[in-house]
Amino acid sequence: MRNLSLRTRVLTGSAVLAALGAGTFGAVSASAAAPAAETRAAVKADTANRNLQQSTHLTVSAATKAAEAVLDAAKKENQRVSVAVVDRNGNTIVSLRGDGAGPQSPESAVKKGYTAVSWNAPTSELVKRLAQAPNLKDIPGTLFLGGGAPVQVKGAPVAGIGVAGAPSGDLDEKFAQAGVASLAK
Amino acid sequence: MRNLSLRTRVLTGSAVLAALGAGTFGAVSASAAAPAAETRAAVKADTANRNLQQSTHLTVSAATKAAEAVLDAAKKENQRVSVAVVDRNGNTIVSLRGDGAGPQSPESAVKKGYTAVSWNAPTSELVKRLAQAPNLKDIPGTLFLGGGAPVQVKGAPVAGIGVAGAPSGDLDEKFAQAGVASLAK
Amino acid sequence: MRNLSLRTRVLTGSAVLAALGAGTFGAVSASAAAPAAETRAAVKADTANRNLQQSTHLTVSAATKAAEAVLDAAKKENQRVSVAVVDRNGNTIVSLRGDGAGPQSPESAVKKGYTAVSWNAPTSELVKRLAQAPNLKDIPGTLFLGGGAPVQVKGAPVAGIGVAGAPSGDLDEKFAQAGVASLAK
Amino acid sequence: MRNLSLRTRVLTGSAVLAALGAGTFGAVSASAAAPAAETRAAVKADTANRNLQQSTHLTVSAATKAAEAVLDAAKKENQRVSVAVVDRNGNTIVSLRGDGAGPQSPESAVKKGYTAVSWNAPTSELVKRLAQAPNLKDIPGTLFLGGGAPVQVKGAPVAGIGVAGAPSGDLDEKFAQAGVASLAK
Amino acid sequence: MRNLSLRTRVLTGSAVLAALGAGTFGAVSASAAAPAAETRAAVKADTANRNLQQSTHLTVSAATKAAEAVLDAAKKENQRVSVAVVDRNGNTIVSLRGDGAGPQSPESAVKKGYTAVSWNAPTSELVKRLAQAPNLKDIPGTLFLGGGAPVQVKGAPVAGIGVAGAPSGDLDEKFAQAGVASLAK
Amino acid sequence: MRNLSLRTRVLTGSAVLAALGAGTFGAVSASAAAPAAETRAAVKADTANRNLQQSTHLTVSAATKAAEAVLDAAKKENQRVSVAVVDRNGNTIVSLRGDGAGPQSPESAVKKGYTAVSWNAPTSELVKRLAQAPNLKDIPGTLFLGGGAPVQVKGAPVAGIGVAGAPSGDLDEKFAQAGVASLAK
Amino acid sequence: MRNLSLRTRVLTGSAVLAALGAGTFGAVSASAAAPAAETRAAVKADTANRNLQQSTHLTVSAATKAAEAVLDAAKKENQRVSVAVVDRNGNTIVSLRGDGAGPQSPESAVKKGYTAVSWNAPTSELVKRLAQAPNLKDIPGTLFLGGGAPVQVKGAPVAGIGVAGAPSGDLDEKFAQAGVASLAK
Amino acid sequence: MRNLSLRTRVLTGSAVLAALGAGTFGAVSASAAAPAAETRAAVKADTANRNLQQSTHLTVSAATKAAEAVLDAAKKENQRVSVAVVDRNGNTIVSLRGDGAGPQSPESAVKKGYTAVSWNAPTSELVKRLAQAPNLKDIPGTLFLGGGAPVQVKGAPVAGIGVAGAPSGDLDEKFAQAGVASLAK
Repeated sequence: MRNLSLRTRVLTGSAVLAALGAGTFGAVSASAAAPAAETRAAVKADTANRNLQQSTHLTVSAATKAAEAVLDAAKKENQRVSVAVVDRNGNTIVSLRGDGAGPQSPESAVKKGYTAVSWNAPTSELVKRLAQAPNLKDIPGTLFLGGGAPVQVKGAPVAGIGVAGAPSGDLDEKFAQAGVASLAK
Repeated sequence: MRNLSLRTRVLTGSAVLAALGAGTFGAVSASAAAPAAETRAAVKADTANRNLQQSTHLTVSAATKAAEAVLDAAKKENQRVSVAVVDRNGNTIVSLRGDGAGPQSPESAVKKGYTAVSWNAPTSELVKRLAQAPNLKDIPGTLFLGGGAPVQVKGAPVAGIGVAGAPSGDLDEKFAQAGVASLAK
Repeated sequence: MRNLSLRTRVLTGSAVLAALGAGTFGAVSASAAAPAAETRAAVKADTANRNLQQSTHLTVSAATKAAEAVLDAAKKENQRVSVAVVDRNGNTIVSLRGDGAGPQSPESAVKKGYTAVSWNAPTSELVKRLAQAPNLKDIPGTLFLGGGAPVQVKGAPVAGIGVAGAPSGDLDEKFAQAGVASLAK
Repeated sequence: MRNLSLRTRVLTGSAVLAALGAGTFGAVSASAAAPAAETRAAVKADTANRNLQQSTHLTVSAATKAAEAVLDAAKKENQRVSVAVVDRNGNTIVSLRGDGAGPQSPESAVKKGYTAVSWNAPTSELVKRLAQAPNLKDIPGTLFLGGGAPVQVKGAPVAGIGVAGAPSGDLDEKFAQAGVASLAK
Repeated sequence: MRNLSLRTRVLTGSAVLAALGAGTFGAVSASAAAPAAETRAAVKADTANRNLQQSTHLTVSAATKAAEAVLDAAKKENQRVSVAVVDRNGNTIVSLRGDGAGPQSPESAVKKGYTAVSWNAPTSELVKRLAQAPNLKDIPGTLFLGGGAPVQVKGAPVAGIGVAGAPSGDLDEKFAQAGVASLAK
Repeated sequence: MRNLSLRTRVLTGSAVLAALGAGTFGAVSASAAAPAAETRAAVKADTANRNLQQSTHLTVSAATKAAEAVLDAAKKENQRVSVAVVDRNGNTIVSLRGDGAGPQSPESAVKKGYTAVSWNAPTSELVKRLAQAPNLKDIPGTLFLGGGAPVQVKGAPVAGIGVAGAPSGDLDEKFAQAGVASLAK
Repeated sequence: MRNLSLRTRVLTGSAVLAALGAGTFGAVSASAAAPAAETRAAVKADTANRNLQQSTHLTVSAATKAAEAVLDAAKKENQRVSVAVVDRNGNTIVSLRGDGAGPQSPESAVKKGYTAVSWNAPTSELVKRLAQAPNLKDIPGTLFLGGGAPVQVKGAPVAGIGVAGAPSGDLDEKFAQAGVASLAK
Repeated sequence: MRNLSLRTRVLTGSAVLAALGAGTFGAVSASAAAPAAETRAAVKADTANRNLQQSTHLTVSAATKAAEAVLDAAKKENQRVSVAVVDRNGNTIVSLRGDGAGPQSPESAVKKGYTAVSWNAPTSELVKRLAQAPNLKDIPGTLFLGGGAPVQVKGAPVAGIGVAGAPSGDLDEKFAQAGVASLAK
């Protein structure tokens, strides 16, 4: 393993983090328009040791902050929702059952977040893809309803925020985007 | 914590219960026509201690009474059904497997009750919403078939009564509404 | 329904809340020593309308605050844990997967919180009861390992905080108690 | 198929029902002492048509009556429990989640009822058999804790009543037996 | 309990069995055309003791005979299928995984049998009802594909035979009907 | 691929079948005494094409015959049991729910058959191994109770027969062995 | 058991293996066009001993080679996918979670492989059959999306290769076919 | 975000990779002796952007190589086993069902790998800890039997290799360690 390849990796990483500083969190619409890009996960091959790779995750603190931003946004509009933040690996990092939200909302939120991070697109966009491939919605763990938004680092998905409980998926997704936006601050 | 805020909460609660005395149980159609209202759950923020909130539930005795009213109504029309009463939290309070009802009926009844309380509307109404958002029916725990009716306190859902086993969802729901009505007596 | 009975209920409620102001959150050891009391749940029969009852819950905001207090306490001792807050109804209100905590920790945390709120005692105490009734641990949803602590209102359980991931159950439970303590502040 | 064989079947059935009139419900202790008998289920071969057999079940009305008797008995001792009545086929006929009973109680009650009807003995007796065959408790659907009691017709099991939520299995089982006793009235 | 009521019950039973001798097994098409009848289960209220009811079941020997008749019929047409016989209570009495049948066939067979006995109609008929109520197919345990046939006693369902693995549901159902027919011999 | 290697394979196969003709079915005790041998499954590497291998299975007809032999043996001793035949791959080939057998018996039978074929030994023997490795019983799908017997071809397991419902595991296993013996006839 | 019947079986087997040498792996399109053939599984009745049958499987080594060929093909097109190889019995032989592939991909891959081997056709072909029988997709374990391809021996299915994670099912299936092709080399 | 903190992170990373070059893979015994260290997961806080963290994983290629090394080691000793490689997040990266391995082996292998990576110790060591905390084995997803070994980077767990199917857990674990060792080459 040479220093050189390590340095190369570092610089790449540096670029990523610098970009983040510039507020690329939540730049969802662009990559949603580019489906071919949506499978570029936030996993960088480690050039120095081919047995290992690195992946980027939200800290639990950041995920909690985003989830609380969702609940705040919903409260302002007098809506009762639940929220979940799901990792690129499909694991739920944060799940909050909102006061007075319906019993179906916590699991729906998890599934929306899972769907958003799996395809790296807002679930309201993904619903449209069912016109082409209706059985996508049979994939276990998914829910094709508005309310999920991906969290991206340089266009690659690191997490999905799912929201459920408002009277429409559009409202749910508005709150989810508020959660994404809170991470860029 | 001051007495004043407590008193305020009490008076609010008093209004709720007085309204109940006036027979608001089962006033389903109104709020079903107002989807924006359906997320107002029967949970009142406790203004005195911000860590706590109160929620309103049917007693098991009331829920059993309602379930038996369902079975009586079905028996009068010579139908064999199962019935369930599901809490606003999504927990099943009462489940009765009717004599001679089909094996699919107990779980169907639970899911209809769950669906009715989750959206605070009769499931026959909710079926119509699938025209707008067909994937609502993929939410875990739900069943979009006639036969579920919400139990409301001042328009907010406290439980759902689900019925299954009759030849049509309309019949199932008629019996479910008989259960709701029994609570106002 | 008469005003009088309502007032009675209110005064009772007032007593509860006043007691909370006096810091009874987390007074766990006392009631754990009194097993006969542990089934008194935080549910008060509504004397005015026999169909309804009220139950007391943590707000999601309070539950999140407690969960973050747990993570903070663990971080100070350089431990990586996950935490969950489970409602008296058995529903998970908050689940946080801690940075670097083992994959087994989120579900273990939920089960410890569930166990603590079900028996209204710290799970380290409940482990001892297995000497008498070893098959208690076969009850679905439970986990008899240190790390769970009940949240009480006047001795009755309203929630359970479960923690998992530290090298010992004692450490996990120390962090859980830090979460309970944060609610009394 | 001859009339004669039919008559034979009828007389047998008659004997069963007559015996019931004499109050054999709940005669649990006798057959519990005779483990060899516990596999005689309440299923009688139909001698006239060898493709068919008859089985005896509680009506849902009887099962509900028994479940409510359980809750009444518990209430008298100020205990909060859940109760279930499980059929000889293993299906749950009635499930009531008691006011304020712990979240673990409804499923525990089902499993205790299931265990009692499967082996046709009170679960407090069955716990003792684990000394001989400890892995009996690994059989899916079972729970080897006091609180389950079989409902018998002429010594054969037709249902099991399971109770959970009291501070001890002995208390739970006392209430379950009250439910069995209510059927003999 | 009087002899008279007992005799009444007996005569009814006698009629059932006599009818069976006359070959009413498998007279499916008639009742399928009469949906209102499909909820009349093979459960007869016991008029003498209101706590009990009787239900009619296939013996395991009869169910096995029917299942083997299915496999024989399939073999004659060189098809590889699996077969299941499901009780009116929803329990699987017999399950046979046919030689060389696809891995999806055993569970499909169970679900088809379950569906046929639940609605007391061949599943090929039930598929047509989805035009009216498309979400029927979301009921847990069901599969709306040709291949299931009810076993009836005087028009009431006692079991369902499900077959899966042939290239079409029509073929599967032809074999299922061969199983039903074998019971009338 | 040369004819020679094929012939070699054939002769091996021939030896297997000849041995079977000599009644090696059910020669259980020998290999149970030789734990090192119990992992030799009935899978023979195909020497001609290294991508493929052959495995030996019971036909569904043979498995059904064995299962019925089990029920006959139980009937002779007036016991009510369920039986299952499980493949070396872990798939259930035949499942028969015996008349009047307890509701826990069908799944117990499957698990005993699964356990017997997995370790190629009667489950009564396997129970003894728990003294050395008590957590073996935590392996999913297993049940360490008497009542399971392997079906062997030249000492290698091809299936397991599981029986449940009799008052003791010894009785269950006696019936299971009757099923194995029926295959050698 | 006579030598003659054995010889017959051998010659049949010889034909199979010879054909494989000629590269029949992956001749998918032909049999997909012949649905009637798709139920001929790779199971040959053993004419010498009617209790036994042989079935043909991929070795784990072959299955791993095929799965790695899939990942290599995907990598060349810069796609991140997961892959699974599922046996004719429905068991997963190999499952590889590709670097950076979405969390939904491993289970989707298993289901696509399962679907392809169950119907012995590429899943892109099977999707078209839903026009005739839309509820096929409700069969447990299946997923009707492009990306699954059967592995055949003389036209009979021995395994299915499923791929998921690329932006379209067509791409997924192209990689799956690369896996099938690798087996013919 | 400053360059300086980035450089710091890089150097740390460099140390990790250099250490790997020196063969620290599989240095299991040391850290197993230091339970306090076992919760140090391979997750490094990103000091530059507090919302993100990096985690280290095996590539699928490395995990497959290790799994094949396990099967090779088992083959040399004529044992038939299955193997799984489980990620620090609890996701299964590679699962190989070995030729002729028992049906219980694939899931057992996954659970052993999961257990090893969760506690960062060989499962043979973890079994001993049950003396102190016997209910550890009730944690979902775990299996406390020899046969699991952690894969470590600088002492922190990145994966677990689980093996099942050999006659003893010691043998299984020997093969698992061969898989770990293959990664250091």
